[in-house]
Amino acid sequence: MQIDLQRQTGLSYVQQIKSAIAERIRSGLLAEGSTLPSVRKLSKQLSVSLMTVVQAYDELEKSGLIERIQGKGTFVKTQLGQLSENPADDSPTRPKKQTTNSSPQLKNDTSYQWQLAVTDYLPRAQVWNFDPQGPFPGGINLSTAIIDPDLLPHAELNKELEKALRESPHLLTRYGPIEGDHELREEMASYHRERGMNVTAEDVLITSGAQQGIDLVARCFVGRGDVVIVEAPTYPSALDVFRGRGATIIPVPVDGDGMRLDILTALCDAHPPKLIYTVPTYHNPTGTVMSLRRRQQLLEIAESYHCLIIEDNPWGDLTFENSPPPPSLMQLEADGHVIHLSGFSKTIGPGCRIACLLAKGTVLKRLVGAKSTVDLGSPLLTQRAVLAYLRSKHAKTFQKKLSQALLPKLDAVLATLQEYAPPGVRWTVPLGGVNIWITLPEQLRAEELLAASRTQGITFLLGSACYPGEPEFNHLRISFANAKKEELHRAVRTLCETISSLLQQPRGNRGQEPVL
Amino acid sequence: MQIDLQRQTGLSYVQQIKSAIAERIRSGLLAEGSTLPSVRKLSKQLSVSLMTVVQAYDELEKSGLIERIQGKGTFVKTQLGQLSENPADDSPTRPKKQTTNSSPQLKNDTSYQWQLAVTDYLPRAQVWNFDPQGPFPGGINLSTAIIDPDLLPHAELNKELEKALRESPHLLTRYGPIEGDHELREEMASYHRERGMNVTAEDVLITSGAQQGIDLVARCFVGRGDVVIVEAPTYPSALDVFRGRGATIIPVPVDGDGMRLDILTALCDAHPPKLIYTVPTYHNPTGTVMSLRRRQQLLEIAESYHCLIIEDNPWGDLTFENSPPPPSLMQLEADGHVIHLSGFSKTIGPGCRIACLLAKGTVLKRLVGAKSTVDLGSPLLTQRAVLAYLRSKHAKTFQKKLSQALLPKLDAVLATLQEYAPPGVRWTVPLGGVNIWITLPEQLRAEELLAASRTQGITFLLGSACYPGEPEFNHLRISFANAKKEELHRAVRTLCETISSLLQQPRGNRGQEPVL
Repeated sequence: MQIDLQRQTGLSYVQQIKSAIAERIRSGLLAEGSTLPSVRKLSKQLSVSLMTVVQAYDELEKSGLIERIQGKGTFVKTQLGQLSENPADDSPTRPKKQTTNSSPQLKNDTSYQWQLAVTDYLPRAQVWNFDPQGPFPGGINLSTAIIDPDLLPHAELNKELEKALRESPHLLTRYGPIEGDHELREEMASYHRERGMNVTAEDVLITSGAQQGIDLVARCFVGRGDVVIVEAPTYPSALDVFRGRGATIIPVPVDGDGMRLDILTALCDAHPPKLIYTVPTYHNPTGTVMSLRRRQQLLEIAESYHCLIIEDNPWGDLTFENSPPPPSLMQLEADGHVIHLSGFSKTIGPGCRIACLLAKGTVLKRLVGAKSTVDLGSPLLTQRAVLAYLRSKHAKTFQKKLSQALLPKLDAVLATLQEYAPPGVRWTVPLGGVNIWITLPEQLRAEELLAASRTQGITFLLGSACYPGEPEFNHLRISFANAKKEELHRAVRTLCETISSLLQQPRGNRGQEPVL
Repeated sequence: MQIDLQRQTGLSYVQQIKSAIAERIRSGLLAEGSTLPSVRKLSKQLSVSLMTVVQAYDELEKSGLIERIQGKGTFVKTQLGQLSENPADDSPTRPKKQTTNSSPQLKNDTSYQWQLAVTDYLPRAQVWNFDPQGPFPGGINLSTAIIDPDLLPHAELNKELEKALRESPHLLTRYGPIEGDHELREEMASYHRERGMNVTAEDVLITSGAQQGIDLVARCFVGRGDVVIVEAPTYPSALDVFRGRGATIIPVPVDGDGMRLDILTALCDAHPPKLIYTVPTYHNPTGTVMSLRRRQQLLEIAESYHCLIIEDNPWGDLTFENSPPPPSLMQLEADGHVIHLSGFSKTIGPGCRIACLLAKGTVLKRLVGAKSTVDLGSPLLTQRAVLAYLRSKHAKTFQKKLSQALLPKLDAVLATLQEYAPPGVRWTVPLGGVNIWITLPEQLRAEELLAASRTQGITFLLGSACYPGEPEFNHLRISFANAKKEELHRAVRTLCETISSLLQQPRGNRGQEPVL
């Protein structure tokens, strides 16, 4: 079992070991009845004291996740109580190898036990934080930052795709170039030139979603111990990527003007960054916008330290402001420090998984090299679907219409918070994008709220997922673009009432300490 | 500049440094006029002696790739002579920063110079071995293992896709599950059950091409210094993946019965493998089939050493045999050691980039975790296109028809080789797949043949790309499935005549030593 212990974090090793094992149990990666490594073995492997592992195991046992059997070892007990569909089923399960039952199902479980001894290099993968059972029937998912498919241009995309298929009947049976279809690269360049960026088709790499763009940059330029600066909070799946590369991740707080560059500057001499990851426009998860002044300062820092910047721009056109946001970092710079990621997945067609990476010089060439190793190029079919759509008349006005369609949803959430949120709860008013960041009074942990709201069919993203070191536990992110207006009203009201009720309970009565 | 020096290889450090820099120049990654690191700096960075770097630079200068200017430094001279379209343009180019010319183009070149100081973690990426100019107009590409799109079922795929779009009009605007569309996973499981494998939908992960499958396994389970066993020769892009993870790659030779397990067994105690990568059926690049006995032995080795096997199966149904090949490794094993990759890109729709990864137990679960970090799931659209096609009647008989359509192409190549190949040239007769492996007399290097045949518009894959340490230089792989029968005849005859003519030249007259 690989547990990546981080020194620069607010969490003790005990907490980190406990979290890592709890995540693996929740995700099903450590199945019921699996044997955990002995205290001695794990302490040796992780280079921590025996006592640290003993304490982590103690806490896991107290949480009901594992079971120690004298003389036999330590085993995974059962699923998390709160997820278990049948609480009566909560009896301790012993390793199946030792039972005499040999039905085919059990036999299979047993024979894969050896796999647990295979070390992996997985970082905490965000997927493990998703609810494995999905939302309840009739439940409301506020945890995923996606847009209601009813608002997306499926009819037009389908029409354009069918036209593209008729025009190029060989589309499905050909490979495209690794860097992307040439015509789509031209179109993407012109799309971004319209938004003020000085780019040509030569600067474009087509990726399978912006997530792949982040991954390609990390694979190329981030190695063990390299310093990656992220906003705190930030996009959780970016953290997974950087952690997977063994980076030293340094979080820099965000305020109403974006990343706190005074703090970044103070850090840089001691920890010269290799890469800075930012969502400057409609920041994920807070929805704020980095000011022009800070954008210019950030570019100066990149120049001084010869480092790269990922400018992640998942929904730059989804604005609720009357005036446009400041120019993008890509637009402001001239020296090839910025790698700009425009996702078209979220706002046009998630089923296409097409995004555009813009970079200059050898940085782009090296990213194409990485893309060749990763998947030999994105599918031609989905590229042409997006190409055909972007060229259509519909696309020209669509983003504006989409913003207008999202505004009533946002207003519904804000109005409901205004009306029902108990004192001490704060939230951001996003200028664009799909997320609202809510801060609870410090004595209430978001995990407690999630455990309670899940039973009512409402899920959201734990704010702690948005920090590399999970130092703050009283935040949550709710995404308002997927649910209907009425659902949003109902869900947010329920959340507020649950918060009130949890705040009224004395601390000791709020159940066992949450595990994640 | 990151150069990953390998100790277990037939190549000296001088050769490795020379190759790495030459590749970067060929690929355009190091542009004309770029400054190379000083001898002192590079020797320090790579922990090799000054003399080693001096020798590598000497050889690069002799090859006309770089230029040393007293008191100024070492610079990239120009493109490879053999690729240069205008040999008269071959004048030394100085760093543009020092000229007074400041047109926008030159200014851009200059301003990105700092990027060369950004270390990357790219392995030798196979894309750099592709001809950057592409095949000549009217030329014949025997280097890429793809199938003539005219032979692929584009009409049926298009028809099924349009039907799927009509049935699910929201297809383009929804995300699918990270592990893949549930119905496609069911279909893939049933497809593989028909081929004797004991799998259910729960064992399936949909990936963006088999290349991504290899990459996911490496990202999960291969770390710096972990031992990965590969066949020698093997699929070049798999090598790139393992090298990118810092693996210790150990090649094991292949004979007519597949991987030489006697050699593997002898290696295993000293170098216990973490992962074994094999293409047991219609091996890439030789087309041979691993015997049943060796398949069983290989599984025993995996069990003894608790290691994983990637069974890459890009074209298992593309058979030229009357009897089917032996059962797959996935079919023969019961303990979760095998990860089976079935590519559907090559043989159905390269434009879809859909492949199926089969694995058991926590190994699969961990791979799903990695997939979430990499791209959050493959596009739903292309998954449904493949699903609809696999369910159609056409798909049931298609692979057999495709094999029959490829057979005349294979026969054309074999007959032409038989007629025109000079004595000393040997080749494999593949039992399936799309490749033939040709061995030249030892005194002739495949690079020399490629340089000569490129001028005649014919390209093939250098055999040296198929070895981790490039110990053999007299092999080439030709892929016969893309070109037309007449083209194959013409191209192979030309190759044979070029070989004859090169063999007749005295060694000293065959031009400068090849750089790659």
